[in-house]
Amino acid sequence: MWYTKFGPSGDVVLSSRIRLARNIADIPFVSRMNKEHESQVINRCKAAMPEMTYIDFSSMTKTEILALSESHLVSPEMVENKRQCGILTNSDCSECIMLNEEDHIRIQTMAPGLNLELCLTNANRLDDRLESTVDYGYHKDFGYLTACPTNVGTGMRASVMVHLPALTKLGKMESIIRSLSKLGITVRGFYGEGSKAFGDIYQISNQITLGVSEEDTIDKLTQVIGDIIEKERSLGQKLYSHDKFTFEDKIMRSYGILTNARILTSGETVNLISEVRWGINLGIIKDIDLETMSEVFYDVLPATITKNHNLTTALERDLKRAELIGEKLNS
Amino acid sequence: MWYTKFGPSGDVVLSSRIRLARNIADIPFVSRMNKEHESQVINRCKAAMPEMTYIDFSSMTKTEILALSESHLVSPEMVENKRQCGILTNSDCSECIMLNEEDHIRIQTMAPGLNLELCLTNANRLDDRLESTVDYGYHKDFGYLTACPTNVGTGMRASVMVHLPALTKLGKMESIIRSLSKLGITVRGFYGEGSKAFGDIYQISNQITLGVSEEDTIDKLTQVIGDIIEKERSLGQKLYSHDKFTFEDKIMRSYGILTNARILTSGETVNLISEVRWGINLGIIKDIDLETMSEVFYDVLPATITKNHNLTTALERDLKRAELIGEKLNS
Repeated sequence: MWYTKFGPSGDVVLSSRIRLARNIADIPFVSRMNKEHESQVINRCKAAMPEMTYIDFSSMTKTEILALSESHLVSPEMVENKRQCGILTNSDCSECIMLNEEDHIRIQTMAPGLNLELCLTNANRLDDRLESTVDYGYHKDFGYLTACPTNVGTGMRASVMVHLPALTKLGKMESIIRSLSKLGITVRGFYGEGSKAFGDIYQISNQITLGVSEEDTIDKLTQVIGDIIEKERSLGQKLYSHDKFTFEDKIMRSYGILTNARILTSGETVNLISEVRWGINLGIIKDIDLETMSEVFYDVLPATITKNHNLTTALERDLKRAELIGEKLNS
Repeated sequence: MWYTKFGPSGDVVLSSRIRLARNIADIPFVSRMNKEHESQVINRCKAAMPEMTYIDFSSMTKTEILALSESHLVSPEMVENKRQCGILTNSDCSECIMLNEEDHIRIQTMAPGLNLELCLTNANRLDDRLESTVDYGYHKDFGYLTACPTNVGTGMRASVMVHLPALTKLGKMESIIRSLSKLGITVRGFYGEGSKAFGDIYQISNQITLGVSEEDTIDKLTQVIGDIIEKERSLGQKLYSHDKFTFEDKIMRSYGILTNARILTSGETVNLISEVRWGINLGIIKDIDLETMSEVFYDVLPATITKNHNLTTALERDLKRAELIGEKLNS
């Protein structure tokens, strides 16, 4: 999977993502579609992208769809989607086209680390391919037309997942969030709107889609995030050198618990992984790499683990999570 | 050292000890001795036991004496002893004769596990050896005469160090302590009177020395402790099987912290070792044995670690403690 790889500024940036919202010109928006329209969206897009794998959601359980949302392949909203819907993906799941979500078409491309340019290049390629056979709803003044007015224009949402333990510990996040919002940049907790920042992980994305170009949007975002990365790194070093032993002690205790506990809830795990990741970045933990941590991180997310191991209860999940982490990190 | 070995009922009983208090008939009790008397006690005992090593305390630092007291070789009171004093010991420190402590002579014998008989046999042998050249203060009705009236008679204190996590967790210790006190048996925390029960470790000993025989005293004590061992074992199994996963989780988290922390205070360490020991007994932790735990336990006691590694500050001690434990238990 793409997300277990290490990318540019991978110490701070987990992943980058571009999403383009598109609608087919001669089919009503999803809220007004009938069954026939739903099939048309799917069939036309499938035909346009024969090299991608189509997964139809009608045959999938809620848990299976949630598991896809945990690896950012689909939005969590897809779980409750009553329409005929599904996704087209490539083999490592770094490229994906959601069909009949909020818009007919949502192109998503992902990359490890800070690499919005790559995501945009890939998204544009998929966009061009689709557009060669599918006619998009487009207004010459506004740009791409979307179901929700907040996406009209570029239809693009660029977002970057960052791990900011030092800035969080030092209470700097609130002021960062405030000043970024003035630039039209939104900071959310892990897994989108309304969610808390588990494990000091944040999603930073553009808010504005109207009257701006895609390139300018990702340039601004990349620059802003570059500043945040520098701040996070230097504050991390500062915190560490301020009280080396106490700092190492805290990190190593988290590591000890993460690798030895028999029961690990999802929330505790994200926080422990956050500490261990930080320890790896600061050179305190040497025999585990960030790729392994990323792999573990995604493998033990609630729906993913439930789906992969056929689990039913929360206790089963917490036991299996601890077992998998122990196996992976103690080996 | 004798105390790192595994003895009978070694899962619950750490060690057994016999102490015999004796005084030389023609020398005043220690509170009334002059310098000349002090030397006489030492010289006569040294002469009587040429096969034992004599360590004079005048050349020792407080820390060195405290380190000896941590392995039960001498009483902590010896640190403040202003008289000429010292000990005679054998090579593995299982036999020791304190000179000019509260009494002229205090014979001490120790053994791993529950083995008061062996301790008494060894103590009697040393006692007979001494008595062949030294004349003891003895009263035909009362028995051996001692500086403190509570020791008059046999002059014997038999004590057993036990690890009782289940009885402690279930709040059973108070009623056990109460009922044993009616039998003339005292229960104290680790390291004697007034000390708290660190790490669920208790010292159980006879209170009565007058009008009883040595054999009856250790028989009674051995029997009472046999009952406690059975209770501890069955309650431990019961607690474990009641909620297996939560129990294992707690034990394994302690193990994870003990083996990974960078800073470990003495108090926390004893509690963590207690949990890990329990985990070994219940088969939860398989790749460490109780002997290793005992070795670690004694090696990292405050004065012992300070002495062995030439440390000065508390932080140095807590860092070295964590380092030693990590090396020993992760190897």
